[in-house]
Amino acid sequence: MSEQKFSRFRSEITVRPDDIDVNNHVHFTKYLDYVLAARYMQMREFYKMSMEEFWKRDLTWVVSDLKISFKRELRLEDVAVVETGVNSYNGAQCLVDFIIYKKDGMKVAAEGHFNYTMLSLKSGRPVRLPEDIIQMYSI
Amino acid sequence: MSEQKFSRFRSEITVRPDDIDVNNHVHFTKYLDYVLAARYMQMREFYKMSMEEFWKRDLTWVVSDLKISFKRELRLEDVAVVETGVNSYNGAQCLVDFIIYKKDGMKVAAEGHFNYTMLSLKSGRPVRLPEDIIQMYSI
Amino acid sequence: MSEQKFSRFRSEITVRPDDIDVNNHVHFTKYLDYVLAARYMQMREFYKMSMEEFWKRDLTWVVSDLKISFKRELRLEDVAVVETGVNSYNGAQCLVDFIIYKKDGMKVAAEGHFNYTMLSLKSGRPVRLPEDIIQMYSI
Amino acid sequence: MSEQKFSRFRSEITVRPDDIDVNNHVHFTKYLDYVLAARYMQMREFYKMSMEEFWKRDLTWVVSDLKISFKRELRLEDVAVVETGVNSYNGAQCLVDFIIYKKDGMKVAAEGHFNYTMLSLKSGRPVRLPEDIIQMYSI
Repeated sequence: MSEQKFSRFRSEITVRPDDIDVNNHVHFTKYLDYVLAARYMQMREFYKMSMEEFWKRDLTWVVSDLKISFKRELRLEDVAVVETGVNSYNGAQCLVDFIIYKKDGMKVAAEGHFNYTMLSLKSGRPVRLPEDIIQMYSI
Repeated sequence: MSEQKFSRFRSEITVRPDDIDVNNHVHFTKYLDYVLAARYMQMREFYKMSMEEFWKRDLTWVVSDLKISFKRELRLEDVAVVETGVNSYNGAQCLVDFIIYKKDGMKVAAEGHFNYTMLSLKSGRPVRLPEDIIQMYSI
Repeated sequence: MSEQKFSRFRSEITVRPDDIDVNNHVHFTKYLDYVLAARYMQMREFYKMSMEEFWKRDLTWVVSDLKISFKRELRLEDVAVVETGVNSYNGAQCLVDFIIYKKDGMKVAAEGHFNYTMLSLKSGRPVRLPEDIIQMYSI
Repeated sequence: MSEQKFSRFRSEITVRPDDIDVNNHVHFTKYLDYVLAARYMQMREFYKMSMEEFWKRDLTWVVSDLKISFKRELRLEDVAVVETGVNSYNGAQCLVDFIIYKKDGMKVAAEGHFNYTMLSLKSGRPVRLPEDIIQMYSI
């Protein structure tokens, strides 16, 4: 893993009623869907290369492993602020750190990381990150 | 059913990646979750009585039947504009009409209605709509 | 619509914890996902033509409209028995009736219908049902 | 953490169409919902104390952190075999290891762990695991 550090971006996700489970707070797996949603928004808005543009180049990103720690419940009336940033690149992989804040008070609701792997849509196999994409993402 | 007609309200819902199914558009049941989400937002913002406040009065709303027609696909990059309005009240029931528009172009993506029933949280049984709630909602 | 009547089939779906919402019973849109799941199982098992085989012929089914009435809550410990059957064919459409039973006691939890439209995967447009598929499904 | 090792149990989960995402395989967060579902089934079947019985004692389990590595895609036609087992107990926490197999061929689809914390439903705060529950679960 390289040691360089990159920009971190924030996106807001409004909790939906279908995210709430029997415990009366956001279902634990939905926190991960909020990170995914934030990442898609940030790809489009900040990196200027949306997931649809990766698909056009016959490339896609899949999550190969992840870790999350839950700190504070998100509830029906909450807005989540999802901060993500590339930690490092390595071959076909990109390590993305995230923190989810509860917008009201900006306390940490959850934190962790996703390890993304770039795949070829044709072969389904990992692909070394192309140099132009590393450049585009190294902001 | 009475014949009175009430205000219609609009809320925006941003499509999330976890809403997309194998057909590469929003999963058909998620359109209904968008209506539910819009309704919660509109209860809080326009009717000035959120779902949480109903719960505090030991009341809740459940969907007792619904109908939806799908007209146009919503996709990953779309924002849905969900318009809802009370059509009529009758005993413990409230009929809510909805139209979901694709924000870009404002063409209809889906339309239909939800029939909501008010339940007592204590007994689990239907409750005739209290007069003050009908007043609050008759805007 | 023709008046012929076809076989009805039953499949069991075990309720999962992620199907339960804040009301402590199965979320209303998940009943529709149970019908979809049952239909996929029945296509494979009874009609001997799975959804994957439709895809191989560049065809797919999408839900164009639906109606559901909720009669009884499904809860965490329940198994749903989903009965479906083709009601009629008409051009590119197939009307499927369904009843969802609570396995314990076999009381009706919900009932309604899905109107499916056959689409070409290439053009994205409706396709008149091929005669061999109508035959295969007319059991 | 203690070093004792406990029984491991297996449960089958049939993939549902609403679990499939745009990549044509099971959405990454649904693997975690399969572990949760398997755990509920195993609590009822093998530990003889279902989640509902915890609730009756004003106790509940929440996931406080988790880790998962994805090894192989699960697809629409797959059945997942979810193996879980208690790794260790510590205060209010219980570490549960899991492996998800693809039933056809029994290759590993994903593996990882959940760290569960026991909470009081009244106070919402962690509760040291009662001795009788440790006994019941130490099989």
